[in-house]
Amino acid sequence: MPDSKPDFSDLLKLLHDIYENQMPFNRLLGIQILSLDMQDICVRVDKKPEFIGNYVKDILHGGVISSVIDLTGGIIASVGVLKRMEGSPIEEIISQFTRMGTIDLRVDYLRAGRGNYFLTRGSVLRTGNKVAVIRTEFRNDENLLIAAGTGTYLVG
Amino acid sequence: MPDSKPDFSDLLKLLHDIYENQMPFNRLLGIQILSLDMQDICVRVDKKPEFIGNYVKDILHGGVISSVIDLTGGIIASVGVLKRMEGSPIEEIISQFTRMGTIDLRVDYLRAGRGNYFLTRGSVLRTGNKVAVIRTEFRNDENLLIAAGTGTYLVG
Amino acid sequence: MPDSKPDFSDLLKLLHDIYENQMPFNRLLGIQILSLDMQDICVRVDKKPEFIGNYVKDILHGGVISSVIDLTGGIIASVGVLKRMEGSPIEEIISQFTRMGTIDLRVDYLRAGRGNYFLTRGSVLRTGNKVAVIRTEFRNDENLLIAAGTGTYLVG
Amino acid sequence: MPDSKPDFSDLLKLLHDIYENQMPFNRLLGIQILSLDMQDICVRVDKKPEFIGNYVKDILHGGVISSVIDLTGGIIASVGVLKRMEGSPIEEIISQFTRMGTIDLRVDYLRAGRGNYFLTRGSVLRTGNKVAVIRTEFRNDENLLIAAGTGTYLVG
Repeated sequence: MPDSKPDFSDLLKLLHDIYENQMPFNRLLGIQILSLDMQDICVRVDKKPEFIGNYVKDILHGGVISSVIDLTGGIIASVGVLKRMEGSPIEEIISQFTRMGTIDLRVDYLRAGRGNYFLTRGSVLRTGNKVAVIRTEFRNDENLLIAAGTGTYLVG
Repeated sequence: MPDSKPDFSDLLKLLHDIYENQMPFNRLLGIQILSLDMQDICVRVDKKPEFIGNYVKDILHGGVISSVIDLTGGIIASVGVLKRMEGSPIEEIISQFTRMGTIDLRVDYLRAGRGNYFLTRGSVLRTGNKVAVIRTEFRNDENLLIAAGTGTYLVG
Repeated sequence: MPDSKPDFSDLLKLLHDIYENQMPFNRLLGIQILSLDMQDICVRVDKKPEFIGNYVKDILHGGVISSVIDLTGGIIASVGVLKRMEGSPIEEIISQFTRMGTIDLRVDYLRAGRGNYFLTRGSVLRTGNKVAVIRTEFRNDENLLIAAGTGTYLVG
Repeated sequence: MPDSKPDFSDLLKLLHDIYENQMPFNRLLGIQILSLDMQDICVRVDKKPEFIGNYVKDILHGGVISSVIDLTGGIIASVGVLKRMEGSPIEEIISQFTRMGTIDLRVDYLRAGRGNYFLTRGSVLRTGNKVAVIRTEFRNDENLLIAAGTGTYLVG
């Protein structure tokens, strides 16, 4: 059955759909995955009035920042899992996804979250068949580094 | 002018109102501050369908958990600031509040976020006139520890 | 062969010996494991002149503090591994030990490290067959909390 | 008195001497500051037999790694303080130094600490007149990233 062993680009589309459309809190945040391939992973979140923390200064709530850093790291860790499981049946891949999770996350809030939209990109610090460590940067629409975070993810 | 130097319980009511009603993202999360005094600070967040991360397992998104841990630590740090500034004019206190912020946060995700509602409580690890360090626990409606986090807050 | 399946108390003695006598940097720190059983794990480190960081204030270097927090968490995680592997051949247990390691560590330095000796104790926040998360407190000889740390350990 | 307002390069030499020669635990680690100016700060630590953690695998103890990451971040934060206080009397600068300290540190251990010597370099993520946040990389003699850490430092 050809569908049971999807190729890698199909798996990336599946991952894109899960993170952007199927995870309810990600929908609430309105995240858009601008690119998702082996070369580049980039997530966008727009400033909406309900995402403000400090209403005097009109800046993003730290919780929005940490949420998007966490999920961006999760996407990057997931791509690593997909690569490792390439050729496995789709059921096994989905089963593996449901067991993944963030073990811990540190976020450094570096500048006030001013901007109309924000972009996150990350890099793999450590990878293996049990845990992955991903560092993610959260920048505003002027490319200023607003926050940076490092997450440890269970991937096996 | 009596209003310019409010007593401590008025300041706590002001803080309660700011965190529960005036901060837009806190309203989106629907947090309720169940108690806010020198003896106990406790915040509640309910599971709503849009707060789910892993929809297969029906568990809370890590971003909701880190957001509520962060804001609970912020409330606890703010109470310390209020205590320190007792007797200061209200304008100075509000001015101080707008300069506060989270410097960094680490969250350990310990168990899947299952439950109908969740409660956070924290304790002061370090306090001073520049930074405060607060450790906060996030428990579900069966008192299981779902996550714990430590935040460093700018308070001066 | 009776020696190949040692009982649990023999394994604890082995662990005690490895951490206190066999690991060179632990010997340099002169750590003493005061108790090591299922009820209590406690490590002591003495202030020696060469452990000072700030020589004006005569306080312990942060590196000594983070080292002892890290190794205490490692002992606690190891006891969990021993418990899980009870009944396994000694070769498998030793093989497992050599694959263990700290994935990440956060330390909060809360008070200046003043004192003649220091004690660490920790608690298991999360355990499993892949990772363990341990929180460890570092107190001085007057029981003041000098630092607290949380480590994530690879245990499988 | 000309000596009371030293120029910036004298202050860097003073800082170099304090960290390399005056702090007892740094001497025990045998750190060498290879460069210390506004363009580049680099610290070296050699593998000595007593710095080993896992003696089966002959790899550096995590405590040595976290210690050198912490002190490298401290040097970088100190250079920022020197720059800010340029022109101040030497007594004030020294007084400021004795009040500085690490608030918190997270270290990610990414690869086994194999090598004959190791180099650390860092970058300023956040700076101000109260706290600085510094990210430091710890690489071996083949330029492999062994560990990375982020520290928050009190600087005011």
